[in-house]
Amino acid sequence: MEDFEKYRKALYTHLENTISVSEPKGLYDPIKYILALGGKRLRPILTLMTADFFSGNVNEAKNAALAVELFHNFSLIHDDIMDNAPLRRGKETVHEKWDLNTGILSGDAMLILAYQLFEAYEPAMFQQLAKLFSTTALQVCEGQQYDVDFETRNDVTIAEYIKMIDYKTAVLIGAAMKMGAIVANASEECCNNIYDFGRNLGIAFQLQDDYLDAFGNPETFGKQVGGDIISNKKTFLYLKALEGSNTSESEILNSLFTTLPEDPSQKIETVKKLFKSTGSAKATISEIENYTKKAFELLDKIELKEDKKASLKSFGEWLMQRTV
Amino acid sequence: MEDFEKYRKALYTHLENTISVSEPKGLYDPIKYILALGGKRLRPILTLMTADFFSGNVNEAKNAALAVELFHNFSLIHDDIMDNAPLRRGKETVHEKWDLNTGILSGDAMLILAYQLFEAYEPAMFQQLAKLFSTTALQVCEGQQYDVDFETRNDVTIAEYIKMIDYKTAVLIGAAMKMGAIVANASEECCNNIYDFGRNLGIAFQLQDDYLDAFGNPETFGKQVGGDIISNKKTFLYLKALEGSNTSESEILNSLFTTLPEDPSQKIETVKKLFKSTGSAKATISEIENYTKKAFELLDKIELKEDKKASLKSFGEWLMQRTV
Repeated sequence: MEDFEKYRKALYTHLENTISVSEPKGLYDPIKYILALGGKRLRPILTLMTADFFSGNVNEAKNAALAVELFHNFSLIHDDIMDNAPLRRGKETVHEKWDLNTGILSGDAMLILAYQLFEAYEPAMFQQLAKLFSTTALQVCEGQQYDVDFETRNDVTIAEYIKMIDYKTAVLIGAAMKMGAIVANASEECCNNIYDFGRNLGIAFQLQDDYLDAFGNPETFGKQVGGDIISNKKTFLYLKALEGSNTSESEILNSLFTTLPEDPSQKIETVKKLFKSTGSAKATISEIENYTKKAFELLDKIELKEDKKASLKSFGEWLMQRTV
Repeated sequence: MEDFEKYRKALYTHLENTISVSEPKGLYDPIKYILALGGKRLRPILTLMTADFFSGNVNEAKNAALAVELFHNFSLIHDDIMDNAPLRRGKETVHEKWDLNTGILSGDAMLILAYQLFEAYEPAMFQQLAKLFSTTALQVCEGQQYDVDFETRNDVTIAEYIKMIDYKTAVLIGAAMKMGAIVANASEECCNNIYDFGRNLGIAFQLQDDYLDAFGNPETFGKQVGGDIISNKKTFLYLKALEGSNTSESEILNSLFTTLPEDPSQKIETVKKLFKSTGSAKATISEIENYTKKAFELLDKIELKEDKKASLKSFGEWLMQRTV
């Protein structure tokens, strides 16, 4: 996606100009630090791209895009505390580099700063953007809570799991795109369709992440392959394997997912075999395809020039290319 | 303030009706819990009272009032984590009753819920309220950061201290009242004057809290008398005492404020004597009077019926009655 570079640059300049407050340093330095860690900037780029596609005006969408990026980083700071994570993008997490209190307070300030970015829009648009933002932000909190709850539950259904990843990951992708459409004054129907496009693609993206965590190429997958299996995370692969397994298979799976062996290689091997023998691996791929297809079907409904639709489709394919 | 009861009831009913979401319980139960702990509800009552005084319509201000109360409780949950506080209003704090992660996440959700409450207003008013809310919320975060920073600094000036309590406490009192005025469609000048009234009264209130912490009546003061001295907190009393002390006094004061004796009664006695001999106790009372006077002078500028002005003044006197 060569066009991404254009959006990334626009965002970067705007970020530099906007987050310039500096006192008290203890509050604002951690905010600058996490924003400087980089990352794909996928969400704000989606806001800029969508605005560009619907109206050609990238500039107007910059504040909304940055709000999405600030929110995403706020949630990373607080999630890293909750997950006790020492590293983020290869660097110390905020609560590690500073301390717990700094992580909490800087995160809070970032959430408020995100809301402030919408103030640049006239009242009706401000309200529309802030409303979408609040709904989405609350869903992300709920998704995070479901994720925490699932750790200690043994009766998580597949529908519940999908709802969790939808709230925790997909709604923000949908909202990022919808904000671009709102800023571009697209019709309500367009706004809703692009939202659903992003949301379905977001679910596909997260399911793919689950899949690659087990079956990805260690050389190209960013994280440790088998990480979810090591930490006994009840992903789609795991839930689907339980569903498709006979009594002895489910007993093995259940019991392996209570262990934390020092050398996990045997455990990973056995679990991956079960993911295949129970049909879960295939079912996961097919579910990823379903959600991607749903997203692409929504494109047909959107009033947009064909070349823009093609670009959105190739973006979706680019996002999903890691599976195929 | 007998009228308070009327506002308190209106707020209570609205709170019950509004915070009715329940799933996931792990996220929303702690929110209901802290809101049920009660407290004075001073801030939301001020919003309702101000709206009532300017337009007679208490109902319209309910959502803004509740937003202020949600924000205040959000900050309590996160501050209690940062202060490692086991108790709040005599009951377990959220992170004690549940855990750290619950405290962080439920607090986050409360902040977002506060913003959502403004959605009931039409766009222009929504923007005005949300803008004031964001500015204030960010100042509260900055105030909290200054408070944390001051713990390890030995060169805090009195001006810095006043800024800290202004941000941490007073701006929210001012904003609570200004929101009532905004909802009542009061003129911009009125809105600003009532804001400054609340803000000055808020500084006086916090300085009085510092004063009573040392010189309050143990039987009527809600907290442990001498608590700030025990924990070596650099309050106005302490900073003013340093300013007014000779070399030997400041040496004693400085050295006592590095100790944490098992039985603090002797330390409290000595420090209180120094607060008096250096003129700090008197200077603090006079500063409280200055800020209260500033607040009352602002009342003269406000376009409001004389009986309402008298009510605001008696509210201020009621708030300050503990000193005199």
